[in-house]
Amino acid sequence: MHLFYQPDIRSNESTHILTEDDSRHAVKTLRLRVGDSVLVTDGQGNRYSAVIHTTDPRRCSFRLTDVQTTPPRPFSIRICVAPTKNLDRIEWFIEKAVELGIERISFFFGQHSERRVLKMERLEKIAVSAMKQSLQSYLPKLDDALSFSELLKTITEEERFIAHLPNDEPPVNLAKRATATGQYAVLIGPEGDFSDKEIQQAVAAGFQMVTLGPNRLRTETAALTACQLLNFINA
Amino acid sequence: MHLFYQPDIRSNESTHILTEDDSRHAVKTLRLRVGDSVLVTDGQGNRYSAVIHTTDPRRCSFRLTDVQTTPPRPFSIRICVAPTKNLDRIEWFIEKAVELGIERISFFFGQHSERRVLKMERLEKIAVSAMKQSLQSYLPKLDDALSFSELLKTITEEERFIAHLPNDEPPVNLAKRATATGQYAVLIGPEGDFSDKEIQQAVAAGFQMVTLGPNRLRTETAALTACQLLNFINA
Repeated sequence: MHLFYQPDIRSNESTHILTEDDSRHAVKTLRLRVGDSVLVTDGQGNRYSAVIHTTDPRRCSFRLTDVQTTPPRPFSIRICVAPTKNLDRIEWFIEKAVELGIERISFFFGQHSERRVLKMERLEKIAVSAMKQSLQSYLPKLDDALSFSELLKTITEEERFIAHLPNDEPPVNLAKRATATGQYAVLIGPEGDFSDKEIQQAVAAGFQMVTLGPNRLRTETAALTACQLLNFINA
Repeated sequence: MHLFYQPDIRSNESTHILTEDDSRHAVKTLRLRVGDSVLVTDGQGNRYSAVIHTTDPRRCSFRLTDVQTTPPRPFSIRICVAPTKNLDRIEWFIEKAVELGIERISFFFGQHSERRVLKMERLEKIAVSAMKQSLQSYLPKLDDALSFSELLKTITEEERFIAHLPNDEPPVNLAKRATATGQYAVLIGPEGDFSDKEIQQAVAAGFQMVTLGPNRLRTETAALTACQLLNFINA
């Protein structure tokens, strides 16, 4: 059954109107008829069962019949990644991370970042469609790109990791360092890696250096692997 | 340092010639000079240190100075996946799986597969460049697409899994079912999922039904997740 996203939905109103895009999609593409059942999520844990009430291709209305509320996960994953030079790669990461389960994605421009501009609108759309495609009820938060120093100030998660090999001690895999049901933040550097200054800043801010496996990974592969390892230790 | 791939390299010969493509890349793009150091792998576990001997842009030659042989991993991962309708998605899977570590990728056309043609040449190139990019010495084996029944006949791995939810019993995550240092084969269905007949065939052939997590995953996400979970339990 098709899942629509309606962030401003209120369960105390009986009739609701799909956005113009969703109305067109519902009526023209899905050819939904009056009385057809659909699902609607607010991206905040609520998934509503609904039936199509009117089929105006610009203002398709529906009525709620039931609501299913999913509690937040007992852990939270925040991946902070430097946007890749080739934007496809970061878009791919967002789609996959949302499918697998992630609470928050933050971006930063590092000293060695080649990309210095990041438009969020398209990235938001990718996150929404991945949430819908994987039938989830929570839309992960996407943060605008900040400088590395500004990003560090926004990190309140208790378990902090930076994907970087330590010079003096043997590397430890993220999945061995992280504890179950934690609030995690992981820093993933750009193609040019973190600068020494950034590493020092992160360590000073309580980030632990971890590895994500034996192989050298691309930025977006590393970001997805961190997300997957943290999901796995909570499975 | 740049890593070249030369499957037919022989360590008993002192001088070797890069392929025409690699020669152009080495001389024109990387601007390598006589005496510069490079790495060369045969994709079969050997990584050679070498120095550029002559810089003909069509026949760049090099001499081996040293060889480092990596033993095969104590486990092996084989993912058998139905090619996605949109080929980009399967190409992403190949790149990422090779980066993370995989021994063999097999393709099959299921009863519900929309895609019925798969050209291997481009997929091979993606695997080679991912192997080089992640500095590995083994090139995973890519198999031509077979019918589902034909594919099952080729599977000799002891630990066999099919990503499908059982009807009668509670689902078990692949990572909980698989044992460390095993020889694994995992079947991942097309967008339209496996047919009932295919499920029965797989179960009859000793495949265990497993889940890859709580969310509904796209074909290529499921394939990559299976690879990642099996790598993780061996980490």
